[in-house]
Amino acid sequence: MKNKPSLLLDFQRCRKYSVNICEPLAIEDYSLQAEVFTSPTKWHIAHTSWFFETFLIKPNVKNYKSPNEQYSVLFNSYYNAVGPQFPRNRRGLITRPTVTEVLEYRAHVDEHMLELLSNELTAEQEYLIRLGIAHEQQHQELFFTDLKYSLSFNPLFPTYQELPQKLQQQLFSKHTAQPLTWTSFDGGITEIGAANESFNFDNEGPRHKQWLEPFSLANRLVTNGEYMEFIADGGYRRPELWLSDGWALIQKEQWQKPLYWNDVDNVLHHYTLHGNQPINPDAPVCHLSGYEADAFASWCGARLPTEAEWENAAQSESVITEKSPVLTPKPLQENNSATITQLYQECWQWTSSSYSPYPGYQAAQGAVGEYNGKFMANQLVLRGSSCVTSENHARASYRNFFYPPDRWQFTGVRLAKSQ
Amino acid sequence: MKNKPSLLLDFQRCRKYSVNICEPLAIEDYSLQAEVFTSPTKWHIAHTSWFFETFLIKPNVKNYKSPNEQYSVLFNSYYNAVGPQFPRNRRGLITRPTVTEVLEYRAHVDEHMLELLSNELTAEQEYLIRLGIAHEQQHQELFFTDLKYSLSFNPLFPTYQELPQKLQQQLFSKHTAQPLTWTSFDGGITEIGAANESFNFDNEGPRHKQWLEPFSLANRLVTNGEYMEFIADGGYRRPELWLSDGWALIQKEQWQKPLYWNDVDNVLHHYTLHGNQPINPDAPVCHLSGYEADAFASWCGARLPTEAEWENAAQSESVITEKSPVLTPKPLQENNSATITQLYQECWQWTSSSYSPYPGYQAAQGAVGEYNGKFMANQLVLRGSSCVTSENHARASYRNFFYPPDRWQFTGVRLAKSQ
Amino acid sequence: MKNKPSLLLDFQRCRKYSVNICEPLAIEDYSLQAEVFTSPTKWHIAHTSWFFETFLIKPNVKNYKSPNEQYSVLFNSYYNAVGPQFPRNRRGLITRPTVTEVLEYRAHVDEHMLELLSNELTAEQEYLIRLGIAHEQQHQELFFTDLKYSLSFNPLFPTYQELPQKLQQQLFSKHTAQPLTWTSFDGGITEIGAANESFNFDNEGPRHKQWLEPFSLANRLVTNGEYMEFIADGGYRRPELWLSDGWALIQKEQWQKPLYWNDVDNVLHHYTLHGNQPINPDAPVCHLSGYEADAFASWCGARLPTEAEWENAAQSESVITEKSPVLTPKPLQENNSATITQLYQECWQWTSSSYSPYPGYQAAQGAVGEYNGKFMANQLVLRGSSCVTSENHARASYRNFFYPPDRWQFTGVRLAKSQ
Amino acid sequence: MKNKPSLLLDFQRCRKYSVNICEPLAIEDYSLQAEVFTSPTKWHIAHTSWFFETFLIKPNVKNYKSPNEQYSVLFNSYYNAVGPQFPRNRRGLITRPTVTEVLEYRAHVDEHMLELLSNELTAEQEYLIRLGIAHEQQHQELFFTDLKYSLSFNPLFPTYQELPQKLQQQLFSKHTAQPLTWTSFDGGITEIGAANESFNFDNEGPRHKQWLEPFSLANRLVTNGEYMEFIADGGYRRPELWLSDGWALIQKEQWQKPLYWNDVDNVLHHYTLHGNQPINPDAPVCHLSGYEADAFASWCGARLPTEAEWENAAQSESVITEKSPVLTPKPLQENNSATITQLYQECWQWTSSSYSPYPGYQAAQGAVGEYNGKFMANQLVLRGSSCVTSENHARASYRNFFYPPDRWQFTGVRLAKSQ
Repeated sequence: MKNKPSLLLDFQRCRKYSVNICEPLAIEDYSLQAEVFTSPTKWHIAHTSWFFETFLIKPNVKNYKSPNEQYSVLFNSYYNAVGPQFPRNRRGLITRPTVTEVLEYRAHVDEHMLELLSNELTAEQEYLIRLGIAHEQQHQELFFTDLKYSLSFNPLFPTYQELPQKLQQQLFSKHTAQPLTWTSFDGGITEIGAANESFNFDNEGPRHKQWLEPFSLANRLVTNGEYMEFIADGGYRRPELWLSDGWALIQKEQWQKPLYWNDVDNVLHHYTLHGNQPINPDAPVCHLSGYEADAFASWCGARLPTEAEWENAAQSESVITEKSPVLTPKPLQENNSATITQLYQECWQWTSSSYSPYPGYQAAQGAVGEYNGKFMANQLVLRGSSCVTSENHARASYRNFFYPPDRWQFTGVRLAKSQ
Repeated sequence: MKNKPSLLLDFQRCRKYSVNICEPLAIEDYSLQAEVFTSPTKWHIAHTSWFFETFLIKPNVKNYKSPNEQYSVLFNSYYNAVGPQFPRNRRGLITRPTVTEVLEYRAHVDEHMLELLSNELTAEQEYLIRLGIAHEQQHQELFFTDLKYSLSFNPLFPTYQELPQKLQQQLFSKHTAQPLTWTSFDGGITEIGAANESFNFDNEGPRHKQWLEPFSLANRLVTNGEYMEFIADGGYRRPELWLSDGWALIQKEQWQKPLYWNDVDNVLHHYTLHGNQPINPDAPVCHLSGYEADAFASWCGARLPTEAEWENAAQSESVITEKSPVLTPKPLQENNSATITQLYQECWQWTSSSYSPYPGYQAAQGAVGEYNGKFMANQLVLRGSSCVTSENHARASYRNFFYPPDRWQFTGVRLAKSQ
Repeated sequence: MKNKPSLLLDFQRCRKYSVNICEPLAIEDYSLQAEVFTSPTKWHIAHTSWFFETFLIKPNVKNYKSPNEQYSVLFNSYYNAVGPQFPRNRRGLITRPTVTEVLEYRAHVDEHMLELLSNELTAEQEYLIRLGIAHEQQHQELFFTDLKYSLSFNPLFPTYQELPQKLQQQLFSKHTAQPLTWTSFDGGITEIGAANESFNFDNEGPRHKQWLEPFSLANRLVTNGEYMEFIADGGYRRPELWLSDGWALIQKEQWQKPLYWNDVDNVLHHYTLHGNQPINPDAPVCHLSGYEADAFASWCGARLPTEAEWENAAQSESVITEKSPVLTPKPLQENNSATITQLYQECWQWTSSSYSPYPGYQAAQGAVGEYNGKFMANQLVLRGSSCVTSENHARASYRNFFYPPDRWQFTGVRLAKSQ
Repeated sequence: MKNKPSLLLDFQRCRKYSVNICEPLAIEDYSLQAEVFTSPTKWHIAHTSWFFETFLIKPNVKNYKSPNEQYSVLFNSYYNAVGPQFPRNRRGLITRPTVTEVLEYRAHVDEHMLELLSNELTAEQEYLIRLGIAHEQQHQELFFTDLKYSLSFNPLFPTYQELPQKLQQQLFSKHTAQPLTWTSFDGGITEIGAANESFNFDNEGPRHKQWLEPFSLANRLVTNGEYMEFIADGGYRRPELWLSDGWALIQKEQWQKPLYWNDVDNVLHHYTLHGNQPINPDAPVCHLSGYEADAFASWCGARLPTEAEWENAAQSESVITEKSPVLTPKPLQENNSATITQLYQECWQWTSSSYSPYPGYQAAQGAVGEYNGKFMANQLVLRGSSCVTSENHARASYRNFFYPPDRWQFTGVRLAKSQ
């Protein structure tokens, strides 16, 4: 039980942060849902509580009584094993329970969780609590991306939070792009995947061997300025650069630039949670679909990395301790001195790898087994983390996944090359 | 200017009422928009102010400054001559301006309107103010119907306003259905349409002659109990009762009962703004589409009235004063003693008449000409008024209009027969 | 039985004509179905036989055996009382029965019809045979309009029938537009509708009185040249000219000209069954939707006629014999010498009247009652007849009906005015 | 030039076969297109000729004149670099050119190809001719699958070819399922992909190393009888067995059994090109989507193989000759005596591998580069071959690919397990 003090602290810190980030909102903002793939703030706040209530409290706290039995339907996302779910495309219509009532529900859940946390926990309970925390941190990221998306339809360009002008300038000048260079890696056998030494999602494991051909990775992310060149060179009008499904999509949607880019008095801006901002050409280009990322890479004679290439590079500093009788795979050797930067906390980086189970993958038993495994179809893996991702999700083995057309996440491009 | 004191009073009363009916709402409820054909409360509150601002204040008040120039786009419903409009299906996304800001906008408009009302007004200005009041009263009705519709998706069955139990019983027992009888009317020439003696919408005129064949009208509206018999007799499974487009619609939508009917523990209830209520078989059946109204009429060997038949009956008590050299049309003679009840304040009554211009109809000049005329396609006329209609809209010449599939208004059936 | 010789002759002539007009087709053409609202030639050929088989042969010919029991499903259009129907949008997939087999089916039906026609017929049987002939003539018109529509998607601009160049020139020079003049009509009581003296569809009656205000009708149809002026004047870009639903439609479909107009080497052509042809500015404009017809009328300060106005004008030469104790309605008086031309055999003329039952209308008993009545929703009446309509359908009381967006029929505009 | 005699022969044999398989068709059948993902027979016949015309004749035969310049648009499938394409969903509307004209076009192309084949060819020309043949063989397979799909909507259950009863019995009794056993394979490094020793598609290479964990493969395909057990056990009603996107799809489409299964007098049949046939429980289950294949595998505690596992097993008999300094990968060792059957000529076998480029993959230069590479998104790889696949496509490295929802190909399941 050595982990327990930290577990309690982590739980409390996480729960508090979810509420803190809502503070700048007007009550009206809590119900916003612009598309089926986004959820209202209020729903995130309630669903993350539902998760603890469903998987920890109800099975473990005798005589627990939910404030409202309907919440189990309203705030169930997609767990068929738990029961029916309120239709996802109508989450914006749940004006009742009100924000106040949802916060009361949240406090009610916290109270019972604290009670639970004061007891001795089984390993499984502890894992589920860690999972609940990591789950809530994922929803904290979605809070920002969903809110940004839903606010963006308002022609008033509302700000989630005003930035003092000085801070704005700092933010703008933070990015000065280095020249793009390539770090090359030897081919051979490597290992990827989480080794279960600390908490990770089931989809990150098992750790397993993988053969890689020699490859190179770009030292930094693609910038806005580079992406503008792609546009200026007719990138959105040249079918030979695009995957067939991507070309069909941009025709249908008439896409001609990244999401959130817009003209204000003939100056290119992007809409942010701090309002419309001029675009810094040196900052990483963001809010691209997987198709746009792939087309950009084709345009400059490169490609997207596979997830194994990315992970190999990301773990190249770390020590690999696992023994293996035949081979001792370690991160493949870097062959030059360039440093790979911007791995984390900038943009998720599209890979060319489809999201599928690692060899030997087993979904968790019971309803939490629906967390990851059933989504292993039609999606691509993204690696790294974004400016709104929880810091402790920034690890080499983390597998994020979205559909190739998606671009409301903070998604960008790191280039790769075969040698 | 004899009308001005009453005009000021009417204006103030109307503006106050719009705010009063919002009082029971949670802030969250103001943004609800379940479908493109409904609007959020906040939008109604803002749009009715936009109407006065656009058609009265801006043309007449020098140096008027709107709180936000974007409001002219956000709160324009469909007036192309005024300018572009925020997409109708996204009105629920306008969380900013907040409710507080919209009420400030409203106060700002009221202030300038009072200034305007303190001056001498031209006849056109006075007409436009009367139009603005009538317009706002229409939106007060939409406030109720849209709110009911949008709340109805919430499985908590939220109440707009709780009813004390005693009142609930009174409401339930208010309706005791009389036996259905028929009042017959002679055929001949009649006149329908508004004669412009008091305020009316442009679509109500001009008053004009119309030949009617002998017909009969039912003394009261069709009841819930009678509609249950239609259902029990397989009404929704018998194509021979339905218009072809209606049959296709109920197949596609799988409709088998009126909107808002639902089972609670095997007892048939209907969802109301006071929550789920048991259905009174003697009360008028409500929330039917035009197709359902027509199919029910076919089922009982009757038909829907034409709007001319309905209006003739409705005006049969009044004195017709207009002279005509050839004929002196008057309401056609009733031939029996039955009284026609429930004309107003129960349910709108579907007619078989499509919504089209009366002979000699001219839309008003300028942007307000878009108020009615451009909608004269694909819709049916409904007559009477409903429980949530402004009382002063209850007149014989009033023409309401909706698409045959619509059923979120309080819409019911009065039967007619040819003789 | 005096009508029988002519009935036999009419039957044979009609049946032969359906086959004759198919002669120029390639076998491949018989199955073409570009959209759900059109049917393949082969289906028309089979369905018109199914009609006689279903309503005449099966009820009257003992031991009749259909070539294939499935034909009763495949070739039933919309008669729910007869039984289920093959989905309308898949008629193009019925490659079997082949054309040869369908012609055999047709011969099989003809054989039994001739047998029936050699017996004495009841009045009802005779009516049904006349209905079957009129029905087949309607499908002969649809043969042309559906074929034209479905061929038009082929970039080879296939010709149904080549025209000798001389004939082509004649066809082109046939139309020399007269100056547009107006014929005015007194208001008063008139009668419209079929008096049942010869065959007519049930929707044409009963004949009944109608009050008309004074009105004027244009002497001829609107020309291509006039419509080009409308386009050049921004007709498709000015919302104030359009019904609201029409404006939404042309935005969605990006319509900017009539159906079948296309540029060939910068010269405006229209696609016809004789291939692409240069447009004659003096010929009636054709293939307009009801919305375009209405917008054009608005643009030139006029309006579409009502169906009663049109019919009154069309019958103004005929003698009205029906007596009435109170009034002797007759066609309202024309007040000037202009002649109204192009009533028939040019284009169907959109009216502003929605397709609804005349006072006292009763659909026929049994399945043929589905012929007309159930379509009396959402459609507009068109009057006159087109270049591909059967000549004996050219009568004052004939009511054609289509949805306002439809434009694959030969549909044009005659202007009207109130006085 | 040693290959040339065989090349000529292969060309002629392939071209002749395409025409031969059309012989049982009625002319009407040639234009059938039930859905956008299928093409009409006539289009296949023309497109395969267009391929030779475009990539071989036009670049190499001086003064070549196409019968019709529009054919280059009509029969271009998806080669943007060649030029625009007639919309894919309207291929069924191309009744002209007629079948006869298309066969003339085909003969015209053949004539010029024979001329070309009589000259000395460059290696690239020879490769393109081999590609054209392989391409046409793929369309021969599509001829059968598309025809079957499009005919299946006809309630007459048309037969492409009648089978003599004796042959039918043979066909039925051909399959007697062996007991299902597992062959296990060691893990380690293997090589997959084509080594370019004979013709292959660009997507099959380059040959490359891959690490595999120990796995087992089923000795035979899943049978109809086994799939019936899945259905009987509620397979289509248990969300826990399904990928999330698959579950959503079967809800929407209401799928409850494989494509083409239908009840005839309460006996389960499947529709085939020989008409409706009773289902043999021992024959491989066929016409499953990738989602159904995956759900079935989950139901029996197994999984789909990866494409590398499948290919390793398939090549385990062959000799691997490529040298490598570090490792000599060869097919991983089988550890038991069971034989893996039904690899080819039964059903395509869904794998869990998404269709993506092999390490070092380069699409061919020029327009033929669009053949494969641009489809590497959203699709799954299928391995093996089906009863209608060209025999010389039955090779270990062949990668077929379809979207997970597709089931109109002959697609079945081979199970795999991790050890």
